Amino acid sequence: MAKLLVMYHNPPDPAAFDKYYNRTHVVVAKKLPGVRSYTISKGPIASPGGTSPYHLIAELTFDSMGAIQAALGSLEGQAAVADLANFASAGVTISMYEMRDA
Amino acid sequence: MAKLLVMYHNPPDPAAFDKYYNRTHVVVAKKLPGVRSYTISKGPIASPGGTSPYHLIAELTFDSMGAIQAALGSLEGQAAVADLANFASAGVTISMYEMRDA
Repeated sequence: MAKLLVMYHNPPDPAAFDKYYNRTHVVVAKKLPGVRSYTISKGPIASPGGTSPYHLIAELTFDSMGAIQAALGSLEGQAAVADLANFASAGVTISMYEMRDA
Repeated sequence: MAKLLVMYHNPPDPAAFDKYYNRTHVVVAKKLPGVRSYTISKGPIASPGGTSPYHLIAELTFDSMGAIQAALGSLEGQAAVADLANFASAGVTISMYEMRDA
């Protein structure tokens, strides 16, 4: 299994971010081919230091790294990436990796 | 369900990091009370820009944020946190959050 981990930096207007994310971006992202699961953080993100640089963390799982690359290269993937410009101007950190049990 | 997401920054000696993580830290971290699953990234972490700031990403799930706090506050949790100084000198970003389906 492989993961697409998307960490959204703290936006200037969290309420506007949440509204756009939940009403629009989720709908766009769910169209990615090959998604096996799609979970997001609920409520505030805590860090040991007290403040987190991230407002929302999304996790999408796929069968493999190849499936992630195929998804991002598809028309649906290009639309999802392009949609980031509509709400994630504060920045986004994206990581993709194979997973295994520790 | 709640997640403890631990992102290890690129270490100066990746081979030494991997050896210590897999032989020692995993053993220590598995003793945390209340852990429901523990997965780690396998192989390199990719980012759209090409270079990832992270060498390894670990994901531990618990029943709730309270369970994470209890785990970190336990003797086993204190030992796991203290063990970071033995191999994660390049830095570590920790996030804790409740999860929900998107």
